[in-house]
Amino acid sequence: MAESYDILIIGGGPGGYVAAIRAAQLGFKTAVVEREHMGGICLNWGCIPTKALLRSAEIFHYAEHGSNYGLKIEKPTFEMDAVVKRSRGVSAQLNGGVAMLMKKNKIDIIWGQAKISKAGKGGPVEVEVGEPTKPAVQPQNPVPKGVLGHGTYKAKHVIIATGARPRVLPGIEPDGDRIWTYFEAMKPASMPKSLIVMGSGAIGIEFASFYRTMGADVTVVELLPQILPVEDAEIAAVARKQFEKQGLKILSDAKVAKVAKTGDGVEVTVEQGGKSQVLKAERLISAVGVQGNTEGLNLEAIGVAVERGIIKIDAVGRTNIEGVYAIGDVAGAPMLAHKAEHEGTICVEAIKGLHVHPMKREQIPGCTYCQPQVASVGLTEAKAKENGREVKVGRFRFIANGKAIALGEPEGMVKTVFDAKTGELLGAHMVGAEVTELIQGFVVAMGLETTEEDLMHTVFPHPTLSEMMHESVLDAYGRVIHM
Amino acid sequence: MAESYDILIIGGGPGGYVAAIRAAQLGFKTAVVEREHMGGICLNWGCIPTKALLRSAEIFHYAEHGSNYGLKIEKPTFEMDAVVKRSRGVSAQLNGGVAMLMKKNKIDIIWGQAKISKAGKGGPVEVEVGEPTKPAVQPQNPVPKGVLGHGTYKAKHVIIATGARPRVLPGIEPDGDRIWTYFEAMKPASMPKSLIVMGSGAIGIEFASFYRTMGADVTVVELLPQILPVEDAEIAAVARKQFEKQGLKILSDAKVAKVAKTGDGVEVTVEQGGKSQVLKAERLISAVGVQGNTEGLNLEAIGVAVERGIIKIDAVGRTNIEGVYAIGDVAGAPMLAHKAEHEGTICVEAIKGLHVHPMKREQIPGCTYCQPQVASVGLTEAKAKENGREVKVGRFRFIANGKAIALGEPEGMVKTVFDAKTGELLGAHMVGAEVTELIQGFVVAMGLETTEEDLMHTVFPHPTLSEMMHESVLDAYGRVIHM
Repeated sequence: MAESYDILIIGGGPGGYVAAIRAAQLGFKTAVVEREHMGGICLNWGCIPTKALLRSAEIFHYAEHGSNYGLKIEKPTFEMDAVVKRSRGVSAQLNGGVAMLMKKNKIDIIWGQAKISKAGKGGPVEVEVGEPTKPAVQPQNPVPKGVLGHGTYKAKHVIIATGARPRVLPGIEPDGDRIWTYFEAMKPASMPKSLIVMGSGAIGIEFASFYRTMGADVTVVELLPQILPVEDAEIAAVARKQFEKQGLKILSDAKVAKVAKTGDGVEVTVEQGGKSQVLKAERLISAVGVQGNTEGLNLEAIGVAVERGIIKIDAVGRTNIEGVYAIGDVAGAPMLAHKAEHEGTICVEAIKGLHVHPMKREQIPGCTYCQPQVASVGLTEAKAKENGREVKVGRFRFIANGKAIALGEPEGMVKTVFDAKTGELLGAHMVGAEVTELIQGFVVAMGLETTEEDLMHTVFPHPTLSEMMHESVLDAYGRVIHM
Repeated sequence: MAESYDILIIGGGPGGYVAAIRAAQLGFKTAVVEREHMGGICLNWGCIPTKALLRSAEIFHYAEHGSNYGLKIEKPTFEMDAVVKRSRGVSAQLNGGVAMLMKKNKIDIIWGQAKISKAGKGGPVEVEVGEPTKPAVQPQNPVPKGVLGHGTYKAKHVIIATGARPRVLPGIEPDGDRIWTYFEAMKPASMPKSLIVMGSGAIGIEFASFYRTMGADVTVVELLPQILPVEDAEIAAVARKQFEKQGLKILSDAKVAKVAKTGDGVEVTVEQGGKSQVLKAERLISAVGVQGNTEGLNLEAIGVAVERGIIKIDAVGRTNIEGVYAIGDVAGAPMLAHKAEHEGTICVEAIKGLHVHPMKREQIPGCTYCQPQVASVGLTEAKAKENGREVKVGRFRFIANGKAIALGEPEGMVKTVFDAKTGELLGAHMVGAEVTELIQGFVVAMGLETTEEDLMHTVFPHPTLSEMMHESVLDAYGRVIHM
């Protein structure tokens, strides 16, 4: 007889495994189906291992500039093997941690690819688990112990948390050799001397920043006029200036028209301003976004509504079919791990019948861990104006902050956008050292519907970079101190 | 005829100069009297230059451990001269910045030592500015251009912002040679091989951490059983364990009974648990706290109430004498720059007649920039219980956080203390990488009177250290995910 669950989650990424833990906490008999690696892309091929690579790059950068700090460091070098090994080790450690969390919470892991064979007929949902048809990557980490195997499983509630994969442009298909996605860029066999990065979103820019810091000749090609297109234009401009100072080449408003593989690399034809040029490099990283993993789930047959590759859900993750839910990347933007985790938690709490606060998409922060870092939450200045808001904008630059000077990090900016009428904080945008750790203060503030008044009365500790958050608010109201 | 001001501020430290800028913004004719260096101790001999020294130490530490990150760095070294020069340069840059801010805001700088010669008789307050009687340090930075000189000045309102200086214990007077305060510790002529640090508050621990990281043999002697005595006991214990791992020797519950200078150093008799031992070292740093600079102001004659070395003030900085105010260290604990700045702002706004929110002392964060860093706001668990609160406590350790692992910073903890009945956040306490930048999120939350509910609904970005703030809150309510 098929094993039966209260909640079965398809996909063991951050959305899926966090939902599973919350479900177990709430007393549900819970299982997670995973085909490749617990922790999903985020933990194994995304957020986490890139942070490890970028940490090596950060420290390499410091060592190269040791004399700025009174230190004597003779020509630091690195072994890409060792840098990659460290990064893979970080993923492996956390991957093992997720398996332990499943065990501790008595959550079954079912190993294989899931297909929903029956749903929405009043009875339980049925899921068939079989051989993965097309693993994106071979699992690098061991399969957790004691997993359940292929077969048919039943559940009252099935949550689809299958995540996303790199979007592929026709003619520029990744080949694992010269045309990379984040998979190959994460563990290069050797250090490429030259690279072209197609796309300047978070993924593209993080790899560009990593490889540039490690010494590669890197060119970023972005279709839009602005790099980091979802960020505030001013912030993106500050970041761009810093990248260019570091020797990163950036072609914006530029289109990759053709990619040809040559004997030892790639020739990329780029069209920009009506002109065409051919760039040569050893490798091309395609970072033109991701698309939801909706395939193989049998969604069409069971009638789950999918729109432009995204499963349609309501505020708590319900699809149009009873007993079937979706969270995370496969359920739409912003495709970020913390959004998936939060959706998973809400979805499970709603199944339990708890009163849940629907997620506010505009209060989901975004972080890019390039150097300088970029972080933001809420509306950009342009977006706020587009929405018809009259705004007050505050800015504060790192150069005027004591801690930034003491750290040797004088480049960056904190920008805040307020509703001019109500004083509501609409958005906060940052570029510079440690901003990915700073942004949470503004997220907390927005969640509590703070106004400029409240933030002005808040005492930020001295000397910290976070004082700039305060100054930026003061600046929006003509009260800035250190500028 | 004596120059006359609306507001005259005695002392150009962070309390004084920020109050001056706010006063100028509000339209007051404003002057600052300073005897040594704009920016005060904080900017010239405290918060700022220590952060510069600690940054050099941090990067030296990374370079020494480069192989942990896949890097090859051959024996990094440093020149103490260059490290100190950088630190002094940071102070000089910011000192110049403060002078510029005064000019931009049309604030007069009066150079010399102030004495309040007349006050509280209905007329303006009179201040005589003359030769400094006892400068703590000779100014290292140039006197700003265009300052006013000695003479008598009048003002409707005088704000005392004279700060504090190192407390001196009898028999252990600093001699600038072998017995140091923070002045000498900030610019050692050479690197001492061995050091004894008396006192494990923020100042003592920061210097201990700096010199230990740079290779000195360092022993900290603390009178109380706990190092970092104002911090939560659990947090201090985590910090202590890390310090001891780094080779820092710590004697707590231990008293310095005697200090003798020898030919080449000091011999320090330490009593601990009824036993006595003599420690030898090249230098002793006395870091047993600070005391307010109330002397030379003529306070007794004009009748300003001083209690245990602290000027008594009300919620907006008024002393018992009309027209005389006090802010910052000289007006009491917590003796922190950001508290001084905030008090200065409130004081000036109250003079203007604006509606001000009185400062909440329990919402003033504190930061110590040792490695690992320590930061906190609000009540410790012990203090909350002492106050009769029933508490819920949450903890989350760095070892279970993805970003911490990726950074190679697995040691640390975030602890939150809630009122069990109301869910009010009473305190937050942290030790580990970057916590001095994280704490502001909890400060914002406390200012907005947040409860655990609000914090649980907040989406912290992934992967960040700040996610531990969320997990710590979840843990207090039995809902932690990654542990």
